[in-house]
Amino acid sequence: VDNSRELPNFLEAFSRIKGRKLLIHGGGKKASELSARLGLPVRMHEGRRITDQETLEVAVMVYAGLINKQIVAYLQANHCQSIGICGADAGCVSATRRPIQTIDYGFVGDIHPEQISKSFFINLLEQDLVPVFAPITHDGTGQLLNTNADSVAAALAVALSSAYKVHLLYCFEKKGVMRNVSDENSLIPEITPDSYAQLREQGYIRDGMIPKMDNAFAAIQAGVFDVVIGSAAQLSDIVAGKHGSATRCHPGKDAFK
Amino acid sequence: VDNSRELPNFLEAFSRIKGRKLLIHGGGKKASELSARLGLPVRMHEGRRITDQETLEVAVMVYAGLINKQIVAYLQANHCQSIGICGADAGCVSATRRPIQTIDYGFVGDIHPEQISKSFFINLLEQDLVPVFAPITHDGTGQLLNTNADSVAAALAVALSSAYKVHLLYCFEKKGVMRNVSDENSLIPEITPDSYAQLREQGYIRDGMIPKMDNAFAAIQAGVFDVVIGSAAQLSDIVAGKHGSATRCHPGKDAFK
Repeated sequence: VDNSRELPNFLEAFSRIKGRKLLIHGGGKKASELSARLGLPVRMHEGRRITDQETLEVAVMVYAGLINKQIVAYLQANHCQSIGICGADAGCVSATRRPIQTIDYGFVGDIHPEQISKSFFINLLEQDLVPVFAPITHDGTGQLLNTNADSVAAALAVALSSAYKVHLLYCFEKKGVMRNVSDENSLIPEITPDSYAQLREQGYIRDGMIPKMDNAFAAIQAGVFDVVIGSAAQLSDIVAGKHGSATRCHPGKDAFK
Repeated sequence: VDNSRELPNFLEAFSRIKGRKLLIHGGGKKASELSARLGLPVRMHEGRRITDQETLEVAVMVYAGLINKQIVAYLQANHCQSIGICGADAGCVSATRRPIQTIDYGFVGDIHPEQISKSFFINLLEQDLVPVFAPITHDGTGQLLNTNADSVAAALAVALSSAYKVHLLYCFEKKGVMRNVSDENSLIPEITPDSYAQLREQGYIRDGMIPKMDNAFAAIQAGVFDVVIGSAAQLSDIVAGKHGSATRCHPGKDAFK
């Protein structure tokens, strides 16, 4: 979503995916741009935005407004019937404002996975409507909250895995998990819990990739069929299951026991 | 929605309305404020906003984002299960960019009433979900369009009148249609097509009220049961049918022939 030239191509490829699907998006760069134009300081802590009242309003406007509805309009143009929602809609994803410990993240929500309204999502999916989800949640008392899009995606994937075989795809600008970030040809095509432990020990997976991988395997542990990490530009190849188009995390042989 | 202190009261009263209902909102003042903060000129022509690309983005952010999701979160807090949508969602309300004649309104849409997806709205209503509609539409090719909220409300009321007995309520800051705008006690409690013709001839209804009245009687002609024009602050009394709480436009005795 941060690349307005690539977005229509990505959404066209997304439209062609067969089967039930939903799209969870972020939009951090556009929110930062708008904050800058409004003279609001962008404050981050460990990759997470600190969200005061004005920053929350920017997040709601950009995520749930501009980006969400632009995505929906593009999908409609591709004959993909979609509906743009956030966690407040039908109360489908609720959260609690993160408690203040060493740092006050402001209006940032941590999801209640057990309160996700599965029936609402299943109902949309069974009507062939594609939910397009903006990572804004609510606390049930009228307060909107900014929520991490990756966490929302994982929680929704887990929640829906009791009803469907769920593939969770994380799309970003890289081809996948690389052995060497500066070597385009060092993609790791598959990771299992065993190989993850090895790769981590050998130092190939480190820093910001560790929480992502931990989340991926936690989602698999909780019922998601597999988690694929790859480039938005490669979506068609990834969906076709082309080996080497992305990094696929799966439970390994143990899963079939 | 331009009054952040009154909005929660209005939404609480709205939540208490029995029966199936939907809410169509605008948000012009907040959009103008954001435009001003971004240094965008606000250009109006005959009460309609001229919408260039940047102004459209502001409208989408404010209407479909900030205001829409804030309303939904408040309604959820009042145990009113609601879902915030715009015309792009599920392709429910499509429009055509207004043709350039003497003036180019920019990205402003005129609704296709015959293309309103009645089944989508009926489906939500029958699930006890209250649609909260932001007046942003789309043209089917991926272009979002800014659309007049009063026109959307009338078109949705007409479309749904084949399935339901529809009361269309226009809420604004005045008590209703007044004989004398500077006299609080000059409310006209009822208007029929006959009395409308008289009131207009006598000069009591004029200027901007004429298109509003014309639209009200056109909606009634097209199947809407009645059209009530009143103050947002009086919503409970209006819904209770309290005489003198608002102006009720209805077809008069002729309707019962």
